[in-house]
Amino acid sequence: MIELYTWGTPNGRKIPIMLEEIGLPYTVKPINIGKNEQFDPAYLTISPNNKIPAIVDPDAPGGPLSVFESGAILVYLAEKTGKLLAPSGPARYRALEWLNWQVGGMGPMFGQLGFFAMRSEEKSALAIGRFTDECARLLGVLERRLAEAPYLAGPDYGIADIACYTWAYAGSTFLEPVLGPVYQTCPAVRRWLASVGEREAVQRGMAVPKV
Amino acid sequence: MIELYTWGTPNGRKIPIMLEEIGLPYTVKPINIGKNEQFDPAYLTISPNNKIPAIVDPDAPGGPLSVFESGAILVYLAEKTGKLLAPSGPARYRALEWLNWQVGGMGPMFGQLGFFAMRSEEKSALAIGRFTDECARLLGVLERRLAEAPYLAGPDYGIADIACYTWAYAGSTFLEPVLGPVYQTCPAVRRWLASVGEREAVQRGMAVPKV
Repeated sequence: MIELYTWGTPNGRKIPIMLEEIGLPYTVKPINIGKNEQFDPAYLTISPNNKIPAIVDPDAPGGPLSVFESGAILVYLAEKTGKLLAPSGPARYRALEWLNWQVGGMGPMFGQLGFFAMRSEEKSALAIGRFTDECARLLGVLERRLAEAPYLAGPDYGIADIACYTWAYAGSTFLEPVLGPVYQTCPAVRRWLASVGEREAVQRGMAVPKV
Repeated sequence: MIELYTWGTPNGRKIPIMLEEIGLPYTVKPINIGKNEQFDPAYLTISPNNKIPAIVDPDAPGGPLSVFESGAILVYLAEKTGKLLAPSGPARYRALEWLNWQVGGMGPMFGQLGFFAMRSEEKSALAIGRFTDECARLLGVLERRLAEAPYLAGPDYGIADIACYTWAYAGSTFLEPVLGPVYQTCPAVRRWLASVGEREAVQRGMAVPKV
């Protein structure tokens, strides 16, 4: 059974959502980042970057396999099961485009805005302004895409939606004091957030880990 | 023939290196980001995030295909040609782990350090300290990996090395005033930088676009 090392963060929630969607059984190993458990030397062998999430799949083709980085885990699980990512063709690369867009843009920029605007006691107007502007720009990009297609890769829900959902949800809740007015200008994003958020697998995955 | 829209940045250089390595012919369409050419409305249809690089492949399976996001383009070209990314098994997911690590960590964090420490006239000690520490941590992660394996996915050079090389090179040159002392503590990173940098395809790709 797959072991899932995770915590209740936007990156950490992607993988339980995926596992719930594809119906693979898994056991949760909570890594409490509030207690710095991600720096435990034993965890380093699974996750060399000392971050969550990571998985160990004892039933991988060719023997037990650990995978870190949420984007890589999503692709691994999709390819293992043949679900939520087209095996070839344009739909596959639309999904990988938007997955990479989240991993390289939306995730890091929303994360930095969270630090500078919400978590840091010291305030830098330069940094808050920079990351607020960039997050608003990124939400505009998401809005344009979701105004032309129901899901990020096109007609079908898949791994790009899972990856972007947890961050778009955090942006509309934890970052609401900063980004709330931007979401008001993004009806397609709000329609998609509601649609993805209604899925039972998403609701179960968002509640992991239970502690 | 593949059309490559790019500029001489760490993300922009990944794709000409890949195209040179796999031997696919391509034409370069320079997008001068110093002149904001990435915001041209015609370019938006190819690259909805208004960034470089992007490609158009008129000979994709199923008809012409545009792909944006450097990580997605690397995977697309590897899967199109069967080169520089294992089709299955542990080596495939090692490569995707480190590709995602670059896309989601090394790239954005080195990029932000470049802005706050080098390009911004206004200085924020909070931001410079935060991104300097994170980039040093990331270089430590890269050093541990490259001390145990010749290349990021294991014995064989591939797309994860291309993705990390252009950023590690920028970190050792443009960011040398900040990160130079860290590189001095990373012999495995320097060995790998020299090894990758000696490849003729890498040297040709790093020189694109010629303007």
